[in-house]
Amino acid sequence: MHRLVIIGGGFGGLYAAQSMKNLPVQITLIDRRNFHLFQPLLYQVATGWLSPANIASTLRAVLRHQKNAQVLLAEVTDIDAERRKVIFAGGELGYDTLIVATGSSHHYFGHHDWEKFAPGLKTIEDATEMRRRIFSAFESAERETDPTKIRAWLTFIIVGGGPTGVELAGALADIANKTLTYDFRSIDPADAQILLLEASDRILSTYPEDLSSKAQSFLNNLGISVQTRSAVTELRAGEVAVKRDETYETIPCQTVLWAAGVRASHLGAALARCGVATLDRGGKVIVQNDFSIANHPEIFVIGDLASYTPRGGKPLPGIAPVAQQAGRYVAKVVGARLTGKTLPRFTYRDRGSMAIVGRATAIADLGGFHLAGFTAWLAWLFVHLMQLVEFENRVLVLVQWGWFYFRRSRAARLITGDRFES
Amino acid sequence: MHRLVIIGGGFGGLYAAQSMKNLPVQITLIDRRNFHLFQPLLYQVATGWLSPANIASTLRAVLRHQKNAQVLLAEVTDIDAERRKVIFAGGELGYDTLIVATGSSHHYFGHHDWEKFAPGLKTIEDATEMRRRIFSAFESAERETDPTKIRAWLTFIIVGGGPTGVELAGALADIANKTLTYDFRSIDPADAQILLLEASDRILSTYPEDLSSKAQSFLNNLGISVQTRSAVTELRAGEVAVKRDETYETIPCQTVLWAAGVRASHLGAALARCGVATLDRGGKVIVQNDFSIANHPEIFVIGDLASYTPRGGKPLPGIAPVAQQAGRYVAKVVGARLTGKTLPRFTYRDRGSMAIVGRATAIADLGGFHLAGFTAWLAWLFVHLMQLVEFENRVLVLVQWGWFYFRRSRAARLITGDRFES
Repeated sequence: MHRLVIIGGGFGGLYAAQSMKNLPVQITLIDRRNFHLFQPLLYQVATGWLSPANIASTLRAVLRHQKNAQVLLAEVTDIDAERRKVIFAGGELGYDTLIVATGSSHHYFGHHDWEKFAPGLKTIEDATEMRRRIFSAFESAERETDPTKIRAWLTFIIVGGGPTGVELAGALADIANKTLTYDFRSIDPADAQILLLEASDRILSTYPEDLSSKAQSFLNNLGISVQTRSAVTELRAGEVAVKRDETYETIPCQTVLWAAGVRASHLGAALARCGVATLDRGGKVIVQNDFSIANHPEIFVIGDLASYTPRGGKPLPGIAPVAQQAGRYVAKVVGARLTGKTLPRFTYRDRGSMAIVGRATAIADLGGFHLAGFTAWLAWLFVHLMQLVEFENRVLVLVQWGWFYFRRSRAARLITGDRFES
Repeated sequence: MHRLVIIGGGFGGLYAAQSMKNLPVQITLIDRRNFHLFQPLLYQVATGWLSPANIASTLRAVLRHQKNAQVLLAEVTDIDAERRKVIFAGGELGYDTLIVATGSSHHYFGHHDWEKFAPGLKTIEDATEMRRRIFSAFESAERETDPTKIRAWLTFIIVGGGPTGVELAGALADIANKTLTYDFRSIDPADAQILLLEASDRILSTYPEDLSSKAQSFLNNLGISVQTRSAVTELRAGEVAVKRDETYETIPCQTVLWAAGVRASHLGAALARCGVATLDRGGKVIVQNDFSIANHPEIFVIGDLASYTPRGGKPLPGIAPVAQQAGRYVAKVVGARLTGKTLPRFTYRDRGSMAIVGRATAIADLGGFHLAGFTAWLAWLFVHLMQLVEFENRVLVLVQWGWFYFRRSRAARLITGDRFES
């Protein structure tokens, strides 16, 4: 039986596995976590709206009835393309065809020490750590008596004006202005100052300009200070240094959330080291028309780790729909090869993109058709609910969303992990 | 205004605070966590059925509309009864009346080093750690090829045959026999061996004998090996040494869950050190008829930290209903004192006790009226749902329970925290 190994159970890897359900191959899906994470909703865990389990589906449960698939929980450290083996702690696994779909993680442009001051948002643990910091900051402000220190605890800086940064800013504003309204006795949570810093000219720069500026005015209406052309030059405990054009400013701030950069998974570098793959400037693996690597037709790279440029087009963005469609396409390529057929080349079907901007507000770019406000939010809600993999999650998420919408409460605002220390 | 400080937001402390809603006092509820935890359902988080947020209610949210109450997030380290001050890291707080309700934690009969081999179940972090170990054990078994090692990974020992131990054992049997049925390819999860060790003559020894023996036969029917008069003498990585009457046995086992002993909170010892309180053998504070301490009418101790013996009766057990009733009673005592009235003495209204024994099965002792099986489970379900403090949690828990009951799935079986390492 043809041995097919997939590394990574994200949108690319999982969809590839499911799409090969009826192929005569023996699939092993390897992931270091036991669940598929619905990353587009991770910011809702970070802001206490959803529980981690609401946006995670156990990989084994998803694939339990797929007879030709098995799951292996392991962290792949290297790929031996010569011997066609995947290497992980305590073992290795041979393959005939390999699909690498290990995605990306956040990075700090060389400032590794910034991570402890400004957590990013890629994993469940990242999200619960952000949640801990956000809600602990209000607790610290409540206990503090020095007005300067209170101000620093009630200042939240979000670095990066992409979709994640905008979503976090909007959710934070809702927490400060609505969720916590009656919770404190010394401070008024609505005094919180939320700053969204973006180094380029405008937020949501992958969207059309009119939607960017609508998003910015939605955020301004929520009381968020959106600062473009503003780059962080230094992060220290309790302070953020910002360069704005040619002026420098230091902002006292206890809570910084990182939504700026992503870096491709280390397996791209591993493939490049042994001369198998070529990387682009962002560390992504440059793939061919069918997502395979040049000279290694048996290795495919999909999802955020892949650098795919359609003929005469721009490189595809690192978003879920691209990964899903690539996963399905590669499954078809594998099937075609087994029967000696060929396949038309991949074309990305862009169904549009959407970003949440506060409560029940969104922007949507649906192929030239632009929506902003409540209708865009309804579209967002529908698309995301339909995509959650397991049925039970959909029901629970819907209950929690509905509850939040009507009561503006946040049921999951637990401070867990390290205990609160003032 | 009369300054009333409550330490601990569990059943005792929170119910006391809520019951003083209309008293002319200024209440400060101090807790080291920002949520009230519904501990009776903690085993369901540990076994991947519920999410942490389902059984936790933010203290500030519960008390948000109670004008005379505020919440302080801090860990109390000491009580200065002389100066009437509560001491915590970075501050202190004066009181006119103090209610201490800090409960208990698990303990290992002097074997502190056992904790790393056998986590207990008192906090949210304990529960997610247990969950991680349970589901990681099946993952390790799936990856292992040596039959002896597979056996050790599929052996689960629960130490302690009280309600928590019995609930964990029943849930584990359901995981092994139903939840994971189609999930693995190399192992059969139903091969898991579940041992419930109890040092005394019978499990659930606080229940009548007929219910104990019914519970034991329910557990046996689930394939659980219940071993009474069996005490753990040593815990090491991968092994448990057990003394059974006069014979000794060493059982290879990778997953040990601790449900044996509890120890009173350290604040009892703090009160005893300065001569304010007298402790019983278990470290609990001996209280008077009205839950105050002898010679210190301004200090009350309630809940699991209190040792309360009704006139001519047995000491009250450390369970939620006792803490709740004590909280309400002490609130009335405070109110009566403010107006110079006196109160009839406390009488505990025993509404019965129940324990879950596997899926949709329970035992219930309702004041001489004994139930066992499905009807007992329905009674348990009703009582516990009604008690969950916030409405939204009830809805979510009900959805998840219903889902589980019909599909025997467990949506929250995430392995989080330390990554899985084989």
